[in-house]
Amino acid sequence: MTFKYKNVYINETATISGPYEKEGPLRRYFDKTYDDLYFGEKSWEKAEIKLVKDALVMIMKKSGINKSNIDLVIGGDLLNQITASTYGASGVGNSFIGVYGACSSSVLGLIIGANFIEGNFVSNCACLVSSHNMSSEKQFRYPTEYGAPKPSSATFTSTGAACCMLTNEKSEVRVESATLGRIIDYEQNDPNDMGRVMAPSAIDTLVKHFEETGRNPKYYDLIVTGDLGKYGKEIVKDYLLNTYEIDLGDNYNDCGVMLYDLEKQKEIKAGGSGPVCSALVVYSYIYHLMKEKKAKKVLFLATGALFSPILVYQKENINSICHAISLEVV
Amino acid sequence: MTFKYKNVYINETATISGPYEKEGPLRRYFDKTYDDLYFGEKSWEKAEIKLVKDALVMIMKKSGINKSNIDLVIGGDLLNQITASTYGASGVGNSFIGVYGACSSSVLGLIIGANFIEGNFVSNCACLVSSHNMSSEKQFRYPTEYGAPKPSSATFTSTGAACCMLTNEKSEVRVESATLGRIIDYEQNDPNDMGRVMAPSAIDTLVKHFEETGRNPKYYDLIVTGDLGKYGKEIVKDYLLNTYEIDLGDNYNDCGVMLYDLEKQKEIKAGGSGPVCSALVVYSYIYHLMKEKKAKKVLFLATGALFSPILVYQKENINSICHAISLEVV
Repeated sequence: MTFKYKNVYINETATISGPYEKEGPLRRYFDKTYDDLYFGEKSWEKAEIKLVKDALVMIMKKSGINKSNIDLVIGGDLLNQITASTYGASGVGNSFIGVYGACSSSVLGLIIGANFIEGNFVSNCACLVSSHNMSSEKQFRYPTEYGAPKPSSATFTSTGAACCMLTNEKSEVRVESATLGRIIDYEQNDPNDMGRVMAPSAIDTLVKHFEETGRNPKYYDLIVTGDLGKYGKEIVKDYLLNTYEIDLGDNYNDCGVMLYDLEKQKEIKAGGSGPVCSALVVYSYIYHLMKEKKAKKVLFLATGALFSPILVYQKENINSICHAISLEVV
Repeated sequence: MTFKYKNVYINETATISGPYEKEGPLRRYFDKTYDDLYFGEKSWEKAEIKLVKDALVMIMKKSGINKSNIDLVIGGDLLNQITASTYGASGVGNSFIGVYGACSSSVLGLIIGANFIEGNFVSNCACLVSSHNMSSEKQFRYPTEYGAPKPSSATFTSTGAACCMLTNEKSEVRVESATLGRIIDYEQNDPNDMGRVMAPSAIDTLVKHFEETGRNPKYYDLIVTGDLGKYGKEIVKDYLLNTYEIDLGDNYNDCGVMLYDLEKQKEIKAGGSGPVCSALVVYSYIYHLMKEKKAKKVLFLATGALFSPILVYQKENINSICHAISLEVV
């Protein structure tokens, strides 16, 4: 489903990053960075909650919209029962929506927020996502102390929190349209190859977006996917070209690749992932490019893998979903 | 935040119940019931997914809207990474939103769906919730084989799946308004007393709803909360009367109490809970009352406890949230 907007703008963004992200090429675009993974807290879960609180404090400071004037907070993260968002956003805003779309939660939140603003239900909305490498590893994979080796196709959950304040007040960058995706079962089941799992949903949503808007990739100065990593990115490019004759060309990149220096940061493997991965890239570097008018039309797609460890153990496939949002310089 | 609607209607509902709910007083209002908890599946998780699929098949049959004509599916459940919804809804509808509001997910889904329809983003939306007693017990509490005794304040996760199809086509019952709630931290921390944990958020949202609409409880023929159980229900009544001079009177009941015969079904303790608890009551019995014009104005509030076992172990409070939706006979 593709939606069009006339009155939805990005008011401000806030980005808080962990140490691995700080070592990457986008360091200077982040609002705040940390050198360790605890941030003074005693558990990984509380550390992630701290990041969310930091992002909310930062967005309130930058936007000048205080906690009682935020109409709606939309939060999403990977921590079971989306607790990073709900503990972090407690006491902020007049209403709260918790979303779960795995790594697609960033764009999912933006679309719900944009629809609520365009429909005149709220005048502003803080769209919030977070992830933490250690809280995710602990929950989804092996206890990190095991030091289990990973294949080169594995992605690395990014650490950080990011918030985008959408409002109905005119600003430099507006939300132009969005395509809400559907659940795709492509019979994938390797949790160490999320690029392959999620690429089919990125393809599905890209094709839908181009069909429903009558556009082609050249319409955009930049098309970025969320966190497919270096292999998933190639699948999307090749498949779109060979099956749909859609050439993404040089306009296309993936946030999981952009966030790190994959040559130097070997532990990142195929790229970053997690809800915050794409948000850290888009809300900092890409938003900066747009404000400088170096990229005027950007299509941002966030992909998510819909599964749980318990259903992987029960030999179920890993489904995926992808949502897209189009941002334009006003 | 309170929203008003002019063009949102309930097209149909579908309710699928487990065996405990079948033994309760509302049996004859359910579309389909089961006598065991496995439904022919080999795990509790797959059993819950089966319920979700049943509810979608039932809503498509009753509404005549097939899977490629459903614009949007909104799903929520308690199973980690909302997998009951995402596996159950795979292949149905043109877009999907996953929400997490614990037991408040039912009304959260309805509000997002109603806003999307009122704002002309979609023409219909299937709002879906599920829970399963055994999959929840396994995930949130003790392995059920331990037979750990529970205090009388404990609630019992209901088993079932329920779906409400909202459309922009006129029908007998419309969605009139809604109040989206905020996260409340009332310094509660007993996972065996969810009524007490969630009552403050029900009070907060009720007060907001009455303030923002200029109404009082007499406006409604019936006010129902989601799953506070018999003790939480009394807290809400007493506190509203003593602190706000709002008398809920005889118009008020709780779905967790209504779904079972608490005198006979001793294992239910203080009442039912889980996202499906309130949905099973409202989408079957209360929707029936409305179609028979025996209740013309109904306020439906769903409460949710926002926590995870891991954060309870880390001695964090249990936050809560409550969302309200007003339904009216046309």
